[in-house]
Amino acid sequence: MIKAYAAHSAGGQLEAFEYDPGPLGDQDVEINVESCGICHSDLSMLNNDWGMTQYPFVPGHEVIGTVAAVGSKVTSLTKGQRVGLGWHSGYCGTCSSCMSGDHNLCASAEMTIGGRFGGFADKVRAQASAVVPLPEGVDPDSAGPLLCAGITVFNPLEQFAIKPTSKVGVIGIGGLGHLALQFLNAWGCEVTAFTRDASQKDDLIKLGAHNVLNSSNADELEAAAGKFDYILSTVNVKLDWNAYVATLAPKGRLHFVGATVEPLDLNVFPLLMGQRSVSASPVGSPATIGKMLNFAALHHIKPVTEYFSFSDVNKAMDKLKNGKPHYRVVLKHSL
Amino acid sequence: MIKAYAAHSAGGQLEAFEYDPGPLGDQDVEINVESCGICHSDLSMLNNDWGMTQYPFVPGHEVIGTVAAVGSKVTSLTKGQRVGLGWHSGYCGTCSSCMSGDHNLCASAEMTIGGRFGGFADKVRAQASAVVPLPEGVDPDSAGPLLCAGITVFNPLEQFAIKPTSKVGVIGIGGLGHLALQFLNAWGCEVTAFTRDASQKDDLIKLGAHNVLNSSNADELEAAAGKFDYILSTVNVKLDWNAYVATLAPKGRLHFVGATVEPLDLNVFPLLMGQRSVSASPVGSPATIGKMLNFAALHHIKPVTEYFSFSDVNKAMDKLKNGKPHYRVVLKHSL
Repeated sequence: MIKAYAAHSAGGQLEAFEYDPGPLGDQDVEINVESCGICHSDLSMLNNDWGMTQYPFVPGHEVIGTVAAVGSKVTSLTKGQRVGLGWHSGYCGTCSSCMSGDHNLCASAEMTIGGRFGGFADKVRAQASAVVPLPEGVDPDSAGPLLCAGITVFNPLEQFAIKPTSKVGVIGIGGLGHLALQFLNAWGCEVTAFTRDASQKDDLIKLGAHNVLNSSNADELEAAAGKFDYILSTVNVKLDWNAYVATLAPKGRLHFVGATVEPLDLNVFPLLMGQRSVSASPVGSPATIGKMLNFAALHHIKPVTEYFSFSDVNKAMDKLKNGKPHYRVVLKHSL
Repeated sequence: MIKAYAAHSAGGQLEAFEYDPGPLGDQDVEINVESCGICHSDLSMLNNDWGMTQYPFVPGHEVIGTVAAVGSKVTSLTKGQRVGLGWHSGYCGTCSSCMSGDHNLCASAEMTIGGRFGGFADKVRAQASAVVPLPEGVDPDSAGPLLCAGITVFNPLEQFAIKPTSKVGVIGIGGLGHLALQFLNAWGCEVTAFTRDASQKDDLIKLGAHNVLNSSNADELEAAAGKFDYILSTVNVKLDWNAYVATLAPKGRLHFVGATVEPLDLNVFPLLMGQRSVSASPVGSPATIGKMLNFAALHHIKPVTEYFSFSDVNKAMDKLKNGKPHYRVVLKHSL
């Protein structure tokens, strides 16, 4: 039996919950969970915001642990190995996206917390192809958030071949943004943090920002006209996107990893005159997760975390919901 | 004196107009105009739709002619050489866009029909850097439209490195779109023409389309879900852009060369889930115009034109305005 924490209805409290995972699939692995980050999407799924949650619902898709058992056909992982598991827990493996290494775009990809039980548990299972070895040099205690927040902000750097000579900006410095600042700094870019909270400045510079721009000040935004080659938005609220497009250099890209519900009311003319792009992307493929982890190890990139014990899981969720975590909440068994 | 056709007020008729161009600048060339295509932007400028037209206004920015005279410092062109002149007639030459070969994105670029007199004339002048030699194998009679319509649809293929293995679609098969079909076919792509006029089908296939999709049929559009790697929109009216985004494959790009006035009301989620991009671009740089002309020569790409004599310029403008030219109107002296 696997001991987990589950909600039994939309918005419900998480309660101790046991389930029998059945025999381990040929291609699957079982992970002994050491820690699990909490992501906003865990909260959204718990609340059934996207209308696709199945209850009992066990959140958790930023898992760090060790391999407890491997299926009979698994050759890529061995028992005892330290690994990470993120948003996806399996892929079809045969569609054109999978066959091109873009498993993250597989239309049949399985979600770690969709239709199966997630990482708020002592154990969790996934397809071996979705489980990535944690390289030496990545601190396992704090690594959980790299598996979703980290890969989400790292992925577009690889996908769109962002150049180290680029001037880049990050909108929204929370769980995703604080990792984006670190990755972009290590990527070689001149990094600007957009923030509405000027008191954050010292903290943002410590994280990797070279400049801090007060985005609640229209004059500061206007003064940055034509500056940025790449702007990453991590927020899920509507901003004045055309004002940000105006801060893009010719050929610049405004990229979304935060999904705002309201459509982007983009004017074509500024895009056209400057040959600018707008794009968006989800989490990365296992191959890109591997690159991201190696890059994080090399450059000492580390989520800034607040730890809670698994037994305090409801307190931890509440912190995410109502507090302002600094910057990511992680659950641990060993606290 | 240069003999031209000018409008003296917004929406006015074009009338014979003479002007003294003064001494030829060191870096400039004078062109004996042989022919000049008519573009919708000539009409928009004539009507002062963009609020920046200066009168008397001489339209014409799809010029083919021979070099009549070169300024004292011009080394790239010689008298008698056959050349083309498009939307831009000069660049600052020193900004970071110009220094990177992206002269088309130069914020100080001069327009052939903005603040100077265009190609509806016996002669026209421009900076030598904006004047491109016409290669052997390009039919000079019909080449005018390549200099604006042609480069506008060719430029994104170069800029975004569209792959010959791509499945591509073209929205709006007029002056720009009929050239896009030819370029994309020669580029190696599987080409789909989106049209609301099913009677065009044979014509579109002759131009290079492998498939014709009736875009007024919602079922046909829906059946194409996830198909296209690249869609080029040449229209300047609002369509249901989210329906077209749905026809993009993972990593697909919806690209605008037609400037719609209404904002693009794009939903983020479909962009995010499929790592899709939306972008736009203007005409190309002289370097890209050169590549486009060589590509057109190699692949026998040729604007489909209706000719009018320069003396019938108002009839020609009227055809553009009220008729349905097949596919591009060109003015000629020698008709």
